Amino acid sequence: MKTLIKNGTVVTATGRSLADVLIDGETIAAVLAPGSSLLGFDIASSVDTVIDAGGKYVIPGGVDAHTHMELPFGGTAASDTFETGTRAAAWGGTTTIIDFAVQTYGQRVMDGLATWHQKAAGNCAIDYAFHQIIGDVTDDSLQAMRSLPDEGITSFKLFMAYPGVFMSDDAQIFKAMQVSADTGMMTMMHAENGPVIDVMVKQLLEQGKTDPYYHGVARAWQMEEEATHRAIMLANLTGAPLYVVHVSAKQAVEQLAAARDVGQNVFAETCPQYLFLSMEEQLGATSDEWGAFEGAKWVCSTPLRSKEEGHQHAMWQSLRTNDVQMVSTDHCPFCMKGQKDLGLGDFSKIPNGIGSVEHRMDLLYQGVVDGQISLERWVEITSTTPARMFGLYGKKGVIQPGADADIVIYDPNGHTSIGYGEGKTHHMNMDHSAWEGFEIDGHVDTVLSRGKVVVDGNQYLGAKGDGQFVKRGLSQYLI
Amino acid sequence: MKTLIKNGTVVTATGRSLADVLIDGETIAAVLAPGSSLLGFDIASSVDTVIDAGGKYVIPGGVDAHTHMELPFGGTAASDTFETGTRAAAWGGTTTIIDFAVQTYGQRVMDGLATWHQKAAGNCAIDYAFHQIIGDVTDDSLQAMRSLPDEGITSFKLFMAYPGVFMSDDAQIFKAMQVSADTGMMTMMHAENGPVIDVMVKQLLEQGKTDPYYHGVARAWQMEEEATHRAIMLANLTGAPLYVVHVSAKQAVEQLAAARDVGQNVFAETCPQYLFLSMEEQLGATSDEWGAFEGAKWVCSTPLRSKEEGHQHAMWQSLRTNDVQMVSTDHCPFCMKGQKDLGLGDFSKIPNGIGSVEHRMDLLYQGVVDGQISLERWVEITSTTPARMFGLYGKKGVIQPGADADIVIYDPNGHTSIGYGEGKTHHMNMDHSAWEGFEIDGHVDTVLSRGKVVVDGNQYLGAKGDGQFVKRGLSQYLI
Amino acid sequence: MKTLIKNGTVVTATGRSLADVLIDGETIAAVLAPGSSLLGFDIASSVDTVIDAGGKYVIPGGVDAHTHMELPFGGTAASDTFETGTRAAAWGGTTTIIDFAVQTYGQRVMDGLATWHQKAAGNCAIDYAFHQIIGDVTDDSLQAMRSLPDEGITSFKLFMAYPGVFMSDDAQIFKAMQVSADTGMMTMMHAENGPVIDVMVKQLLEQGKTDPYYHGVARAWQMEEEATHRAIMLANLTGAPLYVVHVSAKQAVEQLAAARDVGQNVFAETCPQYLFLSMEEQLGATSDEWGAFEGAKWVCSTPLRSKEEGHQHAMWQSLRTNDVQMVSTDHCPFCMKGQKDLGLGDFSKIPNGIGSVEHRMDLLYQGVVDGQISLERWVEITSTTPARMFGLYGKKGVIQPGADADIVIYDPNGHTSIGYGEGKTHHMNMDHSAWEGFEIDGHVDTVLSRGKVVVDGNQYLGAKGDGQFVKRGLSQYLI
Amino acid sequence: MKTLIKNGTVVTATGRSLADVLIDGETIAAVLAPGSSLLGFDIASSVDTVIDAGGKYVIPGGVDAHTHMELPFGGTAASDTFETGTRAAAWGGTTTIIDFAVQTYGQRVMDGLATWHQKAAGNCAIDYAFHQIIGDVTDDSLQAMRSLPDEGITSFKLFMAYPGVFMSDDAQIFKAMQVSADTGMMTMMHAENGPVIDVMVKQLLEQGKTDPYYHGVARAWQMEEEATHRAIMLANLTGAPLYVVHVSAKQAVEQLAAARDVGQNVFAETCPQYLFLSMEEQLGATSDEWGAFEGAKWVCSTPLRSKEEGHQHAMWQSLRTNDVQMVSTDHCPFCMKGQKDLGLGDFSKIPNGIGSVEHRMDLLYQGVVDGQISLERWVEITSTTPARMFGLYGKKGVIQPGADADIVIYDPNGHTSIGYGEGKTHHMNMDHSAWEGFEIDGHVDTVLSRGKVVVDGNQYLGAKGDGQFVKRGLSQYLI
Repeated sequence: MKTLIKNGTVVTATGRSLADVLIDGETIAAVLAPGSSLLGFDIASSVDTVIDAGGKYVIPGGVDAHTHMELPFGGTAASDTFETGTRAAAWGGTTTIIDFAVQTYGQRVMDGLATWHQKAAGNCAIDYAFHQIIGDVTDDSLQAMRSLPDEGITSFKLFMAYPGVFMSDDAQIFKAMQVSADTGMMTMMHAENGPVIDVMVKQLLEQGKTDPYYHGVARAWQMEEEATHRAIMLANLTGAPLYVVHVSAKQAVEQLAAARDVGQNVFAETCPQYLFLSMEEQLGATSDEWGAFEGAKWVCSTPLRSKEEGHQHAMWQSLRTNDVQMVSTDHCPFCMKGQKDLGLGDFSKIPNGIGSVEHRMDLLYQGVVDGQISLERWVEITSTTPARMFGLYGKKGVIQPGADADIVIYDPNGHTSIGYGEGKTHHMNMDHSAWEGFEIDGHVDTVLSRGKVVVDGNQYLGAKGDGQFVKRGLSQYLI
Repeated sequence: MKTLIKNGTVVTATGRSLADVLIDGETIAAVLAPGSSLLGFDIASSVDTVIDAGGKYVIPGGVDAHTHMELPFGGTAASDTFETGTRAAAWGGTTTIIDFAVQTYGQRVMDGLATWHQKAAGNCAIDYAFHQIIGDVTDDSLQAMRSLPDEGITSFKLFMAYPGVFMSDDAQIFKAMQVSADTGMMTMMHAENGPVIDVMVKQLLEQGKTDPYYHGVARAWQMEEEATHRAIMLANLTGAPLYVVHVSAKQAVEQLAAARDVGQNVFAETCPQYLFLSMEEQLGATSDEWGAFEGAKWVCSTPLRSKEEGHQHAMWQSLRTNDVQMVSTDHCPFCMKGQKDLGLGDFSKIPNGIGSVEHRMDLLYQGVVDGQISLERWVEITSTTPARMFGLYGKKGVIQPGADADIVIYDPNGHTSIGYGEGKTHHMNMDHSAWEGFEIDGHVDTVLSRGKVVVDGNQYLGAKGDGQFVKRGLSQYLI
Repeated sequence: MKTLIKNGTVVTATGRSLADVLIDGETIAAVLAPGSSLLGFDIASSVDTVIDAGGKYVIPGGVDAHTHMELPFGGTAASDTFETGTRAAAWGGTTTIIDFAVQTYGQRVMDGLATWHQKAAGNCAIDYAFHQIIGDVTDDSLQAMRSLPDEGITSFKLFMAYPGVFMSDDAQIFKAMQVSADTGMMTMMHAENGPVIDVMVKQLLEQGKTDPYYHGVARAWQMEEEATHRAIMLANLTGAPLYVVHVSAKQAVEQLAAARDVGQNVFAETCPQYLFLSMEEQLGATSDEWGAFEGAKWVCSTPLRSKEEGHQHAMWQSLRTNDVQMVSTDHCPFCMKGQKDLGLGDFSKIPNGIGSVEHRMDLLYQGVVDGQISLERWVEITSTTPARMFGLYGKKGVIQPGADADIVIYDPNGHTSIGYGEGKTHHMNMDHSAWEGFEIDGHVDTVLSRGKVVVDGNQYLGAKGDGQFVKRGLSQYLI
Repeated sequence: MKTLIKNGTVVTATGRSLADVLIDGETIAAVLAPGSSLLGFDIASSVDTVIDAGGKYVIPGGVDAHTHMELPFGGTAASDTFETGTRAAAWGGTTTIIDFAVQTYGQRVMDGLATWHQKAAGNCAIDYAFHQIIGDVTDDSLQAMRSLPDEGITSFKLFMAYPGVFMSDDAQIFKAMQVSADTGMMTMMHAENGPVIDVMVKQLLEQGKTDPYYHGVARAWQMEEEATHRAIMLANLTGAPLYVVHVSAKQAVEQLAAARDVGQNVFAETCPQYLFLSMEEQLGATSDEWGAFEGAKWVCSTPLRSKEEGHQHAMWQSLRTNDVQMVSTDHCPFCMKGQKDLGLGDFSKIPNGIGSVEHRMDLLYQGVVDGQISLERWVEITSTTPARMFGLYGKKGVIQPGADADIVIYDPNGHTSIGYGEGKTHHMNMDHSAWEGFEIDGHVDTVLSRGKVVVDGNQYLGAKGDGQFVKRGLSQYLI
């Protein structure tokens, strides 16, 4: 199968140019000056398919480095399976996800990984890779971690929150980071001081403050800042590269910036919710059906923060200054009925998570329209950097010969109305949308995954099992 | 003329891949998966020339954004003409320079620019562009500056040093920056507090401290830090984008980093001399011919700084953290005899400048070998970023269809011995080398300028007049 | 004349205690446990006067280290003479002022000083000392400055604003600071970038923005921050101790704090107007008589700043953190009629200055009532630190044996209504008050100047000529 | 008993003056102008004793706010009893100690306190007060803590180190700090990340690195910096005042300074060992008797740090900038034989602690001689501030009427040779001195404790039981 995408504007992390892209099988064969011919050779008539991308952007498919499909959490499980979640991702222009395999407490690391392979294998619409959550740092786990790179897993996540579930204490983090420093594996960190947050949760509930809004009150920015700094110092001491997930507090960014200013290998992601949503809206939210519990839609950890205090502004700025390098979704969807409503009368029982895997590329493009970031930076933070950060470079995140033909044709003159309500059906397995009402001045027109058109206008042409597991190398950012 | 560069490793700012590059006339026609054929079409036999780059890096030609050919300074003039200087640049893998046209005190801006066009036109070996030095900020100059973008000049330089010659006072800088903010032109700044430095120079000379070493003593880091901060605050007040030239002090970098951390459009370059040379060596330098005056070879402004105080280390680190975005040479060569020796007995009379245009690509590659920067960062700071910073993107600094075929084939297994001494003849018009004795674990093998091979191994195949003036657009980094 | 102040609470910079104070002649003879007797010796009946300070604070008289009596400025002169100004000071509990002798451009330093001695001698109600303004840094001036300590003048002020009038350029500042470093004299600095401010003034006027409010717009915080940093770096380079006058911008405080954090000898004062007044009020000010020109009452330099931007908050905080060490008034009064009104239609012609010498002690005491500072800190920043900072320690600013008996009895249960309007007659020679309507929960009851009661309740008992010139030593804060 | 100290130079935190001090019973009756008479009344002949302090400093007795007499630790106990330790303190010019009562794990707070009262009552040579160590933060403990101020205990210490012994986890710290914020009690913190340090200890021992030197290697500065920041953020969140004990790392000071710059109520002490001793000396230490184990003398926590890395310099600077406010000893003496030698072959078994209670005043005076601090600052950081910090103001730390007559007459022309060796017998109950060989250019001549001369030249005149328990109020530094 040979495909020519012609007349488009190819956008990369460093610039844009008019160019045609030739795909041969699953990979990109050439990037050519526009005109569909080469030295007199008529390419257009030698391919199976020609796609006209005139007036549109041709970009590398999105790489979402933080998803949680089918994750058991709080007595329920994330509502998207690998099948539904990756299909929704494809609809939204994301062609690779990196999901988190989970080692639970007491489990062997490799058993946790095997479970995840079982969940995903044969079910995905797009390619997928894994980070490994280490939920139990023991001598056995530390030993097992050293084998992960052979499995194509070059990053692991630890939690400073959720004591008794996922949390590692500082001694455990230190030991795991020593493995990270030795092997070059990336240490990923959920940086919130869980033990203190849990006290605050308990105290708020005792005071009768049970609405979803108090979730964010309990998870004060001080405890994100603190944990971020602690992780940085542990990384400083061990020499481990550090990647902080879902950063939402401006003071956490200040810690990250300070570490980077002195040359430490510290990286971070933020998520669409911290760029567009805020605690103030959560406080005001109400609905006929749910009343103030409507705010449960936006219960995630780290939490939404106060717009007035400047956190949103700081997140956009950090993307411009590269103090935060990329945007992932932390996609972790739960339905309101039967899932989020577990927390009626007790916000601490609301499953934590927002579903966004379908909307990341659109939402961030709106950031381009709004003048927050440049078109090139959009591609960089949603695709190129995630691929470089997590060892997919050369295969994903770029439009260059030899790379997988994961390509999105994005129409800057199109429009996307996000939501679950009437006439707007998203593709994630959720009974609501955290993004209801967001309007995007652009549209994902065509999505190719390893050379195959999986989304064409409003048609889904892919199939379960299209996506394959991708082994990853080490981060390209270490020196 | 059609050329195929095959089997090489194409290195960009974001990664590397095995790929062939097809050149048709002056521009790149395609980047292709290796194999020299496309969909069965045999490219290799359809081109005029095939260059085998097996085992070598194929990179965009260097862009040196800071040179001073034929610059009148201190009663003499920089010893490289546009002819000799650009030829030396080509030898060293640099295919574009941005030189500084000069408006002198009392002169009309456009007359200064015209003079520079006259010097360069028909003489250059490679393409060239101009920044404009504004040596006299008057109402007329401010008016004229607004026309510069139409001339392809989108940046101007001001001086906070050299009172009575080039220096603008703060009121003048403020007014010029207002033009910068209005038009998007980049304000470039020589950031040293000249009036204070001149007092220190006078006091040192009065104390009999006349050796070249005292040049650096007089130009204390405090006065670079101060001027850098002042420029940043004037940019903050006016909204002008700011680019600080030849940064050498770690404290100046701290100011730049702080400004960037809060989201200001502040950029900077450092130069090879601040990465590799130091005040300590200058102090120790002596020769039979010149004695302690040997140190005059390294008299430049900003000056070499103390290695022990950590400035060198800070410069490399700033390149890794992107607090400094690129490396230019500030090429401003003077011979020891008849030029530098004007300052025998009075360091203040030594013409300021070092010649490096030929060696930048090699020296920075050595930084890759030494583990200071990655291969991709090498390309980024020497070529891609300079092109993006100064509005050459799409033409220069990238290997992509439609771009000028300015390409360097760099051999990581080659070797380069830099110097002027026996058996090592550099190509700059200087009677010595500031880089004598530097050994590079790599070699510029082949250089193409707009599709023409101008350097092939040890042969120069280009000609005077090959290079053309290039109009520049606005910086790609503004938002 | 022997006086016993009994039953009061003596407040010092480090604490408070119930104690009696015995005065013998002009100095303090003893501080004693309360009871009016010592080892059976009945002190009360051995003195001429007994003052009962029961329930009141007994504090060292205020030291106002920044006043401008009879200062020629902008074609007129400050409306308080040494006679009227020092009497008003006495009324307000200030018993020492340090006024600024002025060397004007072209004048000999010692002639400037002599003029000031002539103005003050025989006219003052309280003791006075001088700083020296150096308005013309020449070789002669630099030489003369070295003699100032013999005259009891151990500090000099330079201006980075008012080009063509008082401003010193950086080279001049550098040379003067070298004298400061050599001699230990304190360099005082008016830190605003005058040349840039003057451009902004001109541009605003050209835009028809002529109201007093635009005075503050023109004097943007960036230009205070910049000049503050520049002064700090010049001090860093020369080793001079630095004292920044009338700090009003929070960003300037950040620069001061950063310099102090690394151990530099940098000090600063703020003024009551930056603690209590703001630009927003100035914008809203209007009156039947003056309309928007009412805002001229608050035209001073540095200007009032925006409360919303947090400058006021930062000033109070800086007093608590000791990043700013003391509060002076910058007393420089002008009447609205015949003086301030010179600037009708052109804010730049409004004489710069506010009259506060009478109210400093009261206003800052209100800071104690409001919980901004502690009672001890009140004494410290208004009296003890000014005395230590400027070499008056042992004589002024303390209640201890041997010190001058400059004492204020302050009633925390009294009340003071500040203003010029009906029924509230301040004692400064002004036709209005910048502090109209301020109500103070305390009252200056009794003021002693070198043992003599000069203010007793609502009676003024002093006389012109009571005050003497005081020679000062070096700052106690240098190490 | 009435005593007159005449002709001395009374030194306070803010200055010095020639003055006589009259003591009547246990308190100061008056501070008087020198001359021994008052209004003709001959004081000298009305008192029991006249002490001539001509040419000497008369200062408030030292307040050592951090001692551990008879502290059980690591299977042994601090070798000084309250009797021996307080007597040694008196010899050295310290007239008040604040020791740490200990609540051990599982114990009731008030039982821990009672135990300490039993140890001290009737045994002390000088006055003493207590902080309370909370070794087990439970609901009961939190309740009990609220009663401590009634007992005169207004500060409690938590540990972030020593897991399983004293350590509180973050949730416990948070809850205890809430009590601190509510009551105004000072939270004191041992800020080192114990769990991580314990891993490093284990790893070093496994590598055969068992010498005392590795104690400091294991307790890396990063883990002090981290814990300091964590404590600051917990204080920020709760609003608790925070006092960090025994700060030794320059990066910890940077965290403290940053917190203070933004107005947080954060305070700290350093200790003589961090001002004068270093890791480099510990590494080089050897003796015939002990070999490399000689270094055990300087095993304390936080550990000695590297002088080359600038920690010592930073500590002195922090005392000048007031980022660290005072100096305590952390006196915790152990003998080499039978105590320190428990750690032969395993540094982790060496009891942590240095004995310095006798030498603090002398050592810090040497800082005055060396030009590190001023004479006034010496009094402030060793006496006045400790008293103000911990609610002893008015009784201790000042020379003013009504204060306890705790007075030291210090001879700047005397000399003190510190040590345990031949001819130099210190008074602490230790078989060695960590300060062997230190020579002091000054001498504690006379010490009065509540009016009684307890040390007179080389004679000890006091008795066991002279010292009384002192109840403390809240810190004077809170606002």
